[in-house]
Amino acid sequence: MTKAAPGARHSRGGNTATTAFARKGKSPRRDKDKTSLSKASSSKTVSLKSPGHAVAVPASAGADDDRIVIALSLPKVALSESMAAYFAKCDEKLGFVPNVLKAYAFDMAKLEAFVAMYNDLMLAPSGLSKLEREMIAVAVSSYNKCFYCLVSHGAAVRQYSGDPILGELIAMNYRAAKLSKRQRAMLDFAVKLTVEPWAVEAEDREGLRRAGFSDREIWDIAAVVGFFNMSNRVASATDMRPNTAYHALAR
Amino acid sequence: MTKAAPGARHSRGGNTATTAFARKGKSPRRDKDKTSLSKASSSKTVSLKSPGHAVAVPASAGADDDRIVIALSLPKVALSESMAAYFAKCDEKLGFVPNVLKAYAFDMAKLEAFVAMYNDLMLAPSGLSKLEREMIAVAVSSYNKCFYCLVSHGAAVRQYSGDPILGELIAMNYRAAKLSKRQRAMLDFAVKLTVEPWAVEAEDREGLRRAGFSDREIWDIAAVVGFFNMSNRVASATDMRPNTAYHALAR
Amino acid sequence: MTKAAPGARHSRGGNTATTAFARKGKSPRRDKDKTSLSKASSSKTVSLKSPGHAVAVPASAGADDDRIVIALSLPKVALSESMAAYFAKCDEKLGFVPNVLKAYAFDMAKLEAFVAMYNDLMLAPSGLSKLEREMIAVAVSSYNKCFYCLVSHGAAVRQYSGDPILGELIAMNYRAAKLSKRQRAMLDFAVKLTVEPWAVEAEDREGLRRAGFSDREIWDIAAVVGFFNMSNRVASATDMRPNTAYHALAR
Amino acid sequence: MTKAAPGARHSRGGNTATTAFARKGKSPRRDKDKTSLSKASSSKTVSLKSPGHAVAVPASAGADDDRIVIALSLPKVALSESMAAYFAKCDEKLGFVPNVLKAYAFDMAKLEAFVAMYNDLMLAPSGLSKLEREMIAVAVSSYNKCFYCLVSHGAAVRQYSGDPILGELIAMNYRAAKLSKRQRAMLDFAVKLTVEPWAVEAEDREGLRRAGFSDREIWDIAAVVGFFNMSNRVASATDMRPNTAYHALAR
Amino acid sequence: MTKAAPGARHSRGGNTATTAFARKGKSPRRDKDKTSLSKASSSKTVSLKSPGHAVAVPASAGADDDRIVIALSLPKVALSESMAAYFAKCDEKLGFVPNVLKAYAFDMAKLEAFVAMYNDLMLAPSGLSKLEREMIAVAVSSYNKCFYCLVSHGAAVRQYSGDPILGELIAMNYRAAKLSKRQRAMLDFAVKLTVEPWAVEAEDREGLRRAGFSDREIWDIAAVVGFFNMSNRVASATDMRPNTAYHALAR
Amino acid sequence: MTKAAPGARHSRGGNTATTAFARKGKSPRRDKDKTSLSKASSSKTVSLKSPGHAVAVPASAGADDDRIVIALSLPKVALSESMAAYFAKCDEKLGFVPNVLKAYAFDMAKLEAFVAMYNDLMLAPSGLSKLEREMIAVAVSSYNKCFYCLVSHGAAVRQYSGDPILGELIAMNYRAAKLSKRQRAMLDFAVKLTVEPWAVEAEDREGLRRAGFSDREIWDIAAVVGFFNMSNRVASATDMRPNTAYHALAR
Repeated sequence: MTKAAPGARHSRGGNTATTAFARKGKSPRRDKDKTSLSKASSSKTVSLKSPGHAVAVPASAGADDDRIVIALSLPKVALSESMAAYFAKCDEKLGFVPNVLKAYAFDMAKLEAFVAMYNDLMLAPSGLSKLEREMIAVAVSSYNKCFYCLVSHGAAVRQYSGDPILGELIAMNYRAAKLSKRQRAMLDFAVKLTVEPWAVEAEDREGLRRAGFSDREIWDIAAVVGFFNMSNRVASATDMRPNTAYHALAR
Repeated sequence: MTKAAPGARHSRGGNTATTAFARKGKSPRRDKDKTSLSKASSSKTVSLKSPGHAVAVPASAGADDDRIVIALSLPKVALSESMAAYFAKCDEKLGFVPNVLKAYAFDMAKLEAFVAMYNDLMLAPSGLSKLEREMIAVAVSSYNKCFYCLVSHGAAVRQYSGDPILGELIAMNYRAAKLSKRQRAMLDFAVKLTVEPWAVEAEDREGLRRAGFSDREIWDIAAVVGFFNMSNRVASATDMRPNTAYHALAR
Repeated sequence: MTKAAPGARHSRGGNTATTAFARKGKSPRRDKDKTSLSKASSSKTVSLKSPGHAVAVPASAGADDDRIVIALSLPKVALSESMAAYFAKCDEKLGFVPNVLKAYAFDMAKLEAFVAMYNDLMLAPSGLSKLEREMIAVAVSSYNKCFYCLVSHGAAVRQYSGDPILGELIAMNYRAAKLSKRQRAMLDFAVKLTVEPWAVEAEDREGLRRAGFSDREIWDIAAVVGFFNMSNRVASATDMRPNTAYHALAR
Repeated sequence: MTKAAPGARHSRGGNTATTAFARKGKSPRRDKDKTSLSKASSSKTVSLKSPGHAVAVPASAGADDDRIVIALSLPKVALSESMAAYFAKCDEKLGFVPNVLKAYAFDMAKLEAFVAMYNDLMLAPSGLSKLEREMIAVAVSSYNKCFYCLVSHGAAVRQYSGDPILGELIAMNYRAAKLSKRQRAMLDFAVKLTVEPWAVEAEDREGLRRAGFSDREIWDIAAVVGFFNMSNRVASATDMRPNTAYHALAR
Repeated sequence: MTKAAPGARHSRGGNTATTAFARKGKSPRRDKDKTSLSKASSSKTVSLKSPGHAVAVPASAGADDDRIVIALSLPKVALSESMAAYFAKCDEKLGFVPNVLKAYAFDMAKLEAFVAMYNDLMLAPSGLSKLEREMIAVAVSSYNKCFYCLVSHGAAVRQYSGDPILGELIAMNYRAAKLSKRQRAMLDFAVKLTVEPWAVEAEDREGLRRAGFSDREIWDIAAVVGFFNMSNRVASATDMRPNTAYHALAR
Repeated sequence: MTKAAPGARHSRGGNTATTAFARKGKSPRRDKDKTSLSKASSSKTVSLKSPGHAVAVPASAGADDDRIVIALSLPKVALSESMAAYFAKCDEKLGFVPNVLKAYAFDMAKLEAFVAMYNDLMLAPSGLSKLEREMIAVAVSSYNKCFYCLVSHGAAVRQYSGDPILGELIAMNYRAAKLSKRQRAMLDFAVKLTVEPWAVEAEDREGLRRAGFSDREIWDIAAVVGFFNMSNRVASATDMRPNTAYHALAR
């Protein structure tokens, strides 16, 4: 499974982005929202551009998604040193900087807080595997119908599992997936906590314990569910667009 | 659009299916449902098998989806002549027979009625393009969270539009797609009719007329919405599995 | 129980329909929808008219329901020979042609596909009695609040059961009916599949099996549930009106 | 259509009730609830019995509904003089005593408070006609799926309007009824206040004023909506059964 | 924490009310509703005024709540003798007349019926303690988001229990309260009956019996649930404002 | 407005907490959850204890809320230096350390990320006043029925506004509050984004702009809404208990 390659090449089309940006005003968005954040990317995010090869992008539903990151017009600011390094690392590893980071990049305090929490939750050691955390992200996002998170974390499920169909299952209806008892209990809890948080009680926690989760892991499930209930809403409120490269990753 | 090649090759692995079938009892389904319909495929559906080349299928969430079509144990019957021809044509064109057809193939009257209605609705001349009809199918299935229809008709949206991202948008949240006014009105109507059919009234029809639809086209929208509200439920009730080939189509 | 007689006499007032039709433009509909399909009935459906005796219809909420079948203006076409025969048979047996058939009669391919599927599902041999299939139709239509289907299939429940109160119970709240365990399980499944199809799983099927249903019968339940989730939406989308004769049937 | 006669005769079958009561233990209720309130009727409600003629009741979904009024076992008490007179008057006018009154008759304070509020709301002078108040009752009960109130007040709509179809329309989907703007606004408000009371605001009241309602009439609409949201719940909580006579009234 | 005193003194500011009333037209309500019921208080409700000491009311979200009781303009009428006595008793005991009584005071028949039912349900002997009945009132009102009833009956829970936190718990999420099994079963039933009354069945009643409730007490639970489903809607429909004194009671 | 005083004294009862902790096993929680996090408070959080004076706590629904912070048993760890300083500052200012901080204190990375994000969102300069941010917190928590956040941020609304009634209004039904157009638009957006995030679109953002919000402020609204949709779920998943001191603050 050759992972990021096509996506990488696709999204590296920095020149395209720049060119496209110039004719932003003509973008046929039905949205009244006027401008875009992606100006931020021209501030200090030089690393985002891989000069030289322009790519012909076909007219597509995602045509603007690498340029117009959100539907709010926010200030341009320079990336802090640590964030510039972080963006560069993303670009190196993925071939692109996830648009959610560009969206938060109008304010370093917000960007850094987001990155700190995200990395702790999704990448730090935990009794939950990284795949499991991504499965939670996608199941939650499915119930919130969040386009950004379904696309980006759906790709992550495909990558971590090496199973493209699993990504579709969790995004479309996790109940149709053939999961272990543990993972099923985890996603049932995640979806209940998403849909009717007020009804989660001791017996729900007890169910997770019976499925083998420690209290520490229950915290982690809750925290990931919480985090994506936050991110889904920030993304929906701002019409955040996923990098087009995600769509082809790990198919 | 000569897309289907990889899918075709994938699903043609008839031998795999046959072999897998023999060890069906050991399938690690969490489901108590015992057997499968896919026996039907061994009756007269010879054309489904493309002998010779076994394909190594990786362990995957979709590992059984080409073998165990639904979670009900239904009788085997021979395909009628017309249905055998129809299956052969599907196999020739797509490289596989859609599992929904195999599911209905336990009873020729039911299969023929389904095929007649499906073909009239989705393929006969209409003021709605075939892409528009598939967009309706996917938007409805998104609200009903129907894994089978999202996968199979999501592929159709990708194929007809030549735009993989459009398929994702309609499946995940059609409101995030940048649609023409006409198509947006069409999908708004489709989703309202799916979610709260009792609230559809004269002003909803009037809205479609203002968006340029004739009364004849309004019927067609309603009929496609209705059809997928039916199919979604038959699929969910029986745990119908989409052919794995769909996943890779037109990405 | 003398079935269709009163309804028959009522709806046979063909002259009334014709007369009424002439003053259609003055109909005090709040609906902006302009014309009606019932023109179709003047094409080849001669059998629908029972000449001679005009009936004084009182001003009523159903005053137009035998004339203005749906709120869309669709083409007139001649009935095919087989459909003309079918309409004649309906008229002979029931004393009227169900309005749903008149609604579909603008296109013979659609009418024939509908009739084929309907007759197979509701009338062909099945482990479900005809009454049970009608009970499913009404329970589904109750949750979708479909006026057309509640009236027409409510009448069928009254007729098949010989129990007018049972028809009311299923239409109003099937949980208030005193049903056998088998029929209760059947309707619980039908309503769950209607309201949250994505949540139907192996244990729901297993529940039906425990209540005595074979896999073949589970298919039939699912198919009838699906069919009325389709019909309810076509009826609601088009403001389909039930023949007034249904109201008095089998009271 | 001969109105109350059959119902009247049916429900007057006091002896039947008494006899049936003796074999109560064999009643095939799936309900674990053990006994019935109808014992109350044997206390002082002599007027309820029309001695002599036993009526053969066919096996029916409503077979017990005139005997076993609710699914709670409550004390027998003597009717107060005023309530005995009231019951006698009901019996004389309707041919039966509505089961809701028998249900409350275990405690005179509760019965009298209920009767006082009911009669003021539904029968006292108001800018709302009695038919309009009954239409509200039925629309509210439709959204609460209350079998008792749909049956009993559905009959009242048929009686006051002289239009059997109107009763069905309001019970099944009031949006399908062709109503005056005034009555449509009234029922829209009633249903919104039933389904999401927290969302009713100044603009909803203003809408009623624009439709011609005075503030005094808005109060009455609210009070009737409130009353049936109460009654629906008392009836559902106790499995209150409507007198079988209602079903045939004013068809 | 000095309990009812400030509230009492606050609401006794009859002069304030009168003064405020004179400048009613300048009230900065976003509401289009024009006038208020509180005129009624100037009719015969002399006892409401505690002459002499004007109180400076700070600008507050509740600034008008003691003056403008509801958002409907209703007639002034004199209190009947019994109601005048009742209002005087309220004023003596609580230091104010609850606004719900002032709201109903435009019509003595309605006021008396309301008071009779209220007092029987909430104050008459019952197997449910007064605290339990108030807990039901608050739990129901929480699901209906009724500002008036949450404030006034939340105060009652605080008073009867002597536990300010219990009042918050029931108003905010009764599932977070540590309740006895009996009280938990009671509130589970109350909320189910509020949210989906159609789904209450024999097993729900059986659950109450297992938790120790008699059939007579089940009636009382149902009746209190019903009553507040009524009152919540009358209050929401009319924008009924709770006396400001309630807020500080029993904190 | 003398803020934290009573709460401070109340919550400072560190000895009580310690004592109570010893008899934790006898706590009459219906919850099967066994232990508590509050052990963490004994690690380095010395500043939390105000030695000496034991306080008699009355039996109350909140009796354990200052001791048993969440229903998960998590590791004890020492506070980092910066977090110890932060806790000390909270204690100094409020008289207690908010339980949410104690809950996160089992892992410094998580605690620090939470604190960083919280402080940026709720306290950093913004076009939204601190009161407005707290109003959003409470409105969101009301729809998620989060006991912890309603109590703690309800107190904050009371404090920042100096208006106890405003806190109740937002917690109970923000639509009943008399708000400026700006604040009403803000809360409408917040609640829509909470309840149906998928339906937030360009016209919702445009509505905020018309109400006077800049794009930068729209981001802040979205971010606060998101944050509390996260916190509500972490709190509900872990049965997080608010410090009892909050209840009396700013009443």
